[in-house]
Amino acid sequence: MSAQEKSRPGSTPVGEILGRSVPRLEAREKVTGRAVYTDDMTLPGMLHGALLGSPHAHARLLAYDTSRARAMPGVKAVLTAEDLPDHRIGAVIKDQPLLARGKVLYAGEPVAAVAAVDLETARRALRAIDIQYEPLPEVFDPEEALRPDAPVLHEQREAYFSLAENTEARARTPNAAAHIRLTEGEPDSVWKSCEVIVEDVFETPAQQHIYLEPCSTLASVDRDSGKVTVYTSTQSAFRSQAIIAEALGLPMSKVRVIVPRVGGGFGGKTESTNQPITVALAKAAGAPVKMTFSRTDDMVMMRSRHACRIHMRTGATRDGRILARQVKLHYDTGAYADDGPFVAGVGAWFARGPYRIPHFDIECWCVYTNRLRASAFRGFGNPQIHFASEVQIDRLAEKLNMDPIELRLRNALETGEKWIGGAPVESGTLEACLERAREASDWSRRRSPRASTPGKRRGIGMAAVGHVSALLGSSATIRLNEDGTVTVSTGAVDIGQGSDTALAQVAAAALGLSLEQLNFTGPDTDGSPYDWCTGGTRTTFTVGRVITQACAQIQQQLFEQASEMLERPEQELELRPGGVVGVKGRPEAAVTFGAIAARALYFKGGPIIASSRWMFPAVPIDPRRTSAQGLSSMGNGYFVFGAQVVEVEVDELTGHVQVLEAWSVHDVGRVINPAAAEGQIQGGFVQGLGFALTEELVWKDGQLTNPSMSGYKVLGAPDVPVAIHPILLEHPHGEGPFGAKGVAEASLVGVAAAVSNAIRHATGAHVTRIPATGERVLRALMTTREGGAP
Amino acid sequence: MSAQEKSRPGSTPVGEILGRSVPRLEAREKVTGRAVYTDDMTLPGMLHGALLGSPHAHARLLAYDTSRARAMPGVKAVLTAEDLPDHRIGAVIKDQPLLARGKVLYAGEPVAAVAAVDLETARRALRAIDIQYEPLPEVFDPEEALRPDAPVLHEQREAYFSLAENTEARARTPNAAAHIRLTEGEPDSVWKSCEVIVEDVFETPAQQHIYLEPCSTLASVDRDSGKVTVYTSTQSAFRSQAIIAEALGLPMSKVRVIVPRVGGGFGGKTESTNQPITVALAKAAGAPVKMTFSRTDDMVMMRSRHACRIHMRTGATRDGRILARQVKLHYDTGAYADDGPFVAGVGAWFARGPYRIPHFDIECWCVYTNRLRASAFRGFGNPQIHFASEVQIDRLAEKLNMDPIELRLRNALETGEKWIGGAPVESGTLEACLERAREASDWSRRRSPRASTPGKRRGIGMAAVGHVSALLGSSATIRLNEDGTVTVSTGAVDIGQGSDTALAQVAAAALGLSLEQLNFTGPDTDGSPYDWCTGGTRTTFTVGRVITQACAQIQQQLFEQASEMLERPEQELELRPGGVVGVKGRPEAAVTFGAIAARALYFKGGPIIASSRWMFPAVPIDPRRTSAQGLSSMGNGYFVFGAQVVEVEVDELTGHVQVLEAWSVHDVGRVINPAAAEGQIQGGFVQGLGFALTEELVWKDGQLTNPSMSGYKVLGAPDVPVAIHPILLEHPHGEGPFGAKGVAEASLVGVAAAVSNAIRHATGAHVTRIPATGERVLRALMTTREGGAP
Repeated sequence: MSAQEKSRPGSTPVGEILGRSVPRLEAREKVTGRAVYTDDMTLPGMLHGALLGSPHAHARLLAYDTSRARAMPGVKAVLTAEDLPDHRIGAVIKDQPLLARGKVLYAGEPVAAVAAVDLETARRALRAIDIQYEPLPEVFDPEEALRPDAPVLHEQREAYFSLAENTEARARTPNAAAHIRLTEGEPDSVWKSCEVIVEDVFETPAQQHIYLEPCSTLASVDRDSGKVTVYTSTQSAFRSQAIIAEALGLPMSKVRVIVPRVGGGFGGKTESTNQPITVALAKAAGAPVKMTFSRTDDMVMMRSRHACRIHMRTGATRDGRILARQVKLHYDTGAYADDGPFVAGVGAWFARGPYRIPHFDIECWCVYTNRLRASAFRGFGNPQIHFASEVQIDRLAEKLNMDPIELRLRNALETGEKWIGGAPVESGTLEACLERAREASDWSRRRSPRASTPGKRRGIGMAAVGHVSALLGSSATIRLNEDGTVTVSTGAVDIGQGSDTALAQVAAAALGLSLEQLNFTGPDTDGSPYDWCTGGTRTTFTVGRVITQACAQIQQQLFEQASEMLERPEQELELRPGGVVGVKGRPEAAVTFGAIAARALYFKGGPIIASSRWMFPAVPIDPRRTSAQGLSSMGNGYFVFGAQVVEVEVDELTGHVQVLEAWSVHDVGRVINPAAAEGQIQGGFVQGLGFALTEELVWKDGQLTNPSMSGYKVLGAPDVPVAIHPILLEHPHGEGPFGAKGVAEASLVGVAAAVSNAIRHATGAHVTRIPATGERVLRALMTTREGGAP
Repeated sequence: MSAQEKSRPGSTPVGEILGRSVPRLEAREKVTGRAVYTDDMTLPGMLHGALLGSPHAHARLLAYDTSRARAMPGVKAVLTAEDLPDHRIGAVIKDQPLLARGKVLYAGEPVAAVAAVDLETARRALRAIDIQYEPLPEVFDPEEALRPDAPVLHEQREAYFSLAENTEARARTPNAAAHIRLTEGEPDSVWKSCEVIVEDVFETPAQQHIYLEPCSTLASVDRDSGKVTVYTSTQSAFRSQAIIAEALGLPMSKVRVIVPRVGGGFGGKTESTNQPITVALAKAAGAPVKMTFSRTDDMVMMRSRHACRIHMRTGATRDGRILARQVKLHYDTGAYADDGPFVAGVGAWFARGPYRIPHFDIECWCVYTNRLRASAFRGFGNPQIHFASEVQIDRLAEKLNMDPIELRLRNALETGEKWIGGAPVESGTLEACLERAREASDWSRRRSPRASTPGKRRGIGMAAVGHVSALLGSSATIRLNEDGTVTVSTGAVDIGQGSDTALAQVAAAALGLSLEQLNFTGPDTDGSPYDWCTGGTRTTFTVGRVITQACAQIQQQLFEQASEMLERPEQELELRPGGVVGVKGRPEAAVTFGAIAARALYFKGGPIIASSRWMFPAVPIDPRRTSAQGLSSMGNGYFVFGAQVVEVEVDELTGHVQVLEAWSVHDVGRVINPAAAEGQIQGGFVQGLGFALTEELVWKDGQLTNPSMSGYKVLGAPDVPVAIHPILLEHPHGEGPFGAKGVAEASLVGVAAAVSNAIRHATGAHVTRIPATGERVLRALMTTREGGAP
């Protein structure tokens, strides 16, 4: 019996709460506008913080003059790197100072911080700070940055993976943050056995998270104990706690992070510098400080998805068995590495796609350039490589004259097969997803030539989806209250995706309670058990799982008490709806949780409480299968699968692409809350569509040219298809809560490729660079017509 | 091996943190005045609440007119019982409405509540409320109230213990809230075997808690979720949560209680009505409401110690073996029962004293009168009966011509003997305490006739102390942070006694950490594990114990990780100071908690977390030993012992008693923080001295005459002895954390008897009624000289 089954109470009608689209716990406060986000909060005597960004993309910091700013009335603190300890932070490589130190590495990099009585004063003070720079040569292209003679960003460079040990390779690539190489089979000699070969260069953009709520932090420091309390918009209370402690040299025992409502994150609020700098301002000013970014500051100073250039070649036999793949990836991590090496690692790990390809050679670079640092972003390196892979699969199908779904089905990994490195595919449901997508989208009919609006061309395209769920560890504490209601504490941050509601449903189902009988609390590093982060498609799976584990312990304690109260052995007991333990087959023999709680608290046993812990068991690289340079462990989640189909209409005159209808099929294991799961899938689809069609940070001479919502096009209602059909398949996962898996990132991963493939189907244009703006589509169309690529 | 020993890490130098007078964690903020108490808090849009008290001690409520008050500008809510659900609250008997319903039962009883924009407006509105009363006959003396024809307070009376089942007895005693009878041996026939018999009637006053901070509550109700958040000055976050939920018909899942700093409680902040009424105001007003009592409102409306009248007879053989005791107790519980039945039960349970008395008959009544409700108060029924018992023991010694310490030693219960009902005396250290008190106070010398200031008489007296520690249950959750520091969560409320510091020392000792490496959090019902209450001399014992249990689990998880990291079996590992696990005998082989945490969080095992639970195992009455009417269970803690000695000087002209020096000896098992333990003992002594000499609520015609700090005399610096010597004995308790037991209540229990005995020694006056005001001492002196009692 799996742990999940063990945690599933015998006869509880879990169906009553599981699988129901119960409204969000916080729906009403969000609809009324009463939900409290960090920026809605104030503390007595609170100041406002703001940051000064560098005008240069690469320059030496020669001298500061902050005297005018410090002298301004209402200015309570002015900080530069000189006022801070020299602690560098970063998820993987600790290369980033809170404020630029010695050099600036990208235009907009924070160089000074001010706290003042109001934001206007703070901004005036920033303008009064005088800094002397000595401009340095810049580099913006990751392949150029890899050259031995490129301008060097980090003189004291730590570099990851294969470079960490190989000094010669490091010397040759002064701006490499990581290098990974994965090979299997005979990647050099196999090509001669390939009857069909396709080869392309793909480019994907620096997409920005555009969470609705810009970064915001409110920090106060207790003057007596030195304890720091931070309210902040973050994806992880505990990672924020760690970063603040590390950046400022505090023990974590002195840092408390509380997370109010969060307006989105998408990976951009996982490893932030804005929390420690706000704390530093509060310490310096001796008063609470709130720092909320403007949209422009957020876009200029925070993070983006890694832009990526991908050289890819794939070869197959005439009957459609894919034999070989060669990939070279360049992830542009910008000025600081952050979690870039892991993003690149995930990209490398997914470069084979969810297919059985016996021979491959994947080389992946993560490279510093003088641009905004790149970071985690929904999909974590996978959308980039998935775009390339799934477009190239379609190209291969074309050359083979096969239906692209057929080609995918022929090569799809199945349950029991291994991913790169040897991690097992436990639940290989790609085939089921592809079949369902084909059926739901009426693929064969739509794939046939179809009428379109005059001047427009209609086409349909698809992409397979493979991603992971369940990353790293979590814990939960559950307590029975004196009246039999239950408090569920987790560290999970609901960043807007609805995890609080889904997790409460999991707990309610596990104990047979209504949502009213549950108090779902957290996240607060003082009161909540640890959770790593809302990211990696892990919250439903991992936090849900520790909740069911803790519920199983609570049930055990309830049954111990009830067994004595009802004078029946525990195995004859059952949970009943509404907080009742009864004797199986005897409807009249029952005790309420409230009666059990009263007995436990006032007669025997003591409080009913349980804490649980779990983490995804990392899978080390199996060297007999895969030769790996730079990675010892790759398995960081269970595999999840999906398939995405879009029908597009392309304007022949402008190249504008309109997606008419979309189908997004995902195996979610077990549906906890259909509306929430469908919402995730639709939201992910739209974000993927922005990646595919419009979203791109554009730099000119090192300056970001479009850091605003007018310059950076996020899709609006008219831009998205009238119908995005979320289709949920339920192939339960043995380790997930009630069989559930995550879906968050998978919902974005295949969209860009499906759109490109549909454009190809509609127009013949082979779009290898996204976003597929009208201009790029027209150019691709011309190239294609001129007999260029394909 | 006991659980405590198991939880004690092998070689940790616990001595480095245990037994050290480390400063209070919150010392600095209290000294600077920056500590935040409930009344220091504000919320946006916050209103102020106030209560209207009844002018009558017993009257029917005929009609309300609140229209004028409601119409006043700035008044946001006016409530009477008509606006509230008819839910009664009370710790043992649920007889108390939030606002008087149908009748008022004491002068000052809250009848209406107002929330307004400021306190002035709220008070003006209270004065504008018109209520029609029909006065009813009143009863103020508990023995009078017991008569069948007495005015009846509760027509719908629930009554406890023997009365619950005996309808005839109930009918005969319409105002009895509880009746208990405990007998052993041959209590009727034994008297003829007694060679010496003493008999007295004792009276003890309604003492008030006079916590420095009057009751204060700040409540807000989330309009969308309905969740109630309450900041309040309470001794128990979780009991307050339960009372609010019960009083207002809410599930506890909808109630959150957070406890800021608390300025004392002494039992008076355990079961309050001010929290739910503040919540009701916040709900009615649709805005946060703060209600902070003035000292007078607090004295008139809150609670006091039970006044008590005690008829007691004790008989012994000529050689000082106490054979028999007969006791009749009347605890005046005032208008509502609250926990009065249990207070009376503890009184009955302690009526034999800590002595081997084979024959006894103890009858105890808890009686309603038209006075302020009485409640828990440091000692919980024991100070009253202890006063009587220990004075009578001295009288017996006098008659036997024995030294009073000798007589006590001859009859003291020893380890392994049984208390009333059969609860074992696990650690019978009364003898050690008596010996130590005799030695420390230089008893023999001071007991001899001594010179005194002219017009004054000097004397010395003593009392034995027996009390309990460890009541009910608690739980703790401990988590390892990412940097190896540790978060300790408990529900324990530090009400000023220093438990946070002592408990943090326990956790630090158990894990070999410094206090800086610990984050001690709580109490917050959303984030903290359950703890019953700060009361019953239980926090150090019970919460300390669950902390050591959880630490033992954490150590186990640390060792599992370290065993793999250091490649050594767990039994070869040891904790080292500062958060390190090392290999025994190999100083160089070690890993830090931080390294273990990183491994657990990012590689294997998951978050390190543990929750523990424990409760004192209740001891049922053994019917073969003790015949009990009304009680099935008596054992509610482990016994703790002490001895208290005072030297007094009595002014012959005024009767004024000045205590010159005092010795208070307590077996605390193991000293956690000497300064804190000594502070507890000194504070308890002074509060006991107030009980002995000055503190008394005085009613006239049902009205409290002295509800102010000028009318109610609390001892000041000139009134207390220059030297109160706290003496800590360490006889470790097998179940306590590192052997520790509690001391809080024991430090008060014997003071009044020691003072009375010293007055007798100094002057010959036999003081049986306290407080021993000058007038009463002079009257006792005259009675004695006139050949009355003794």
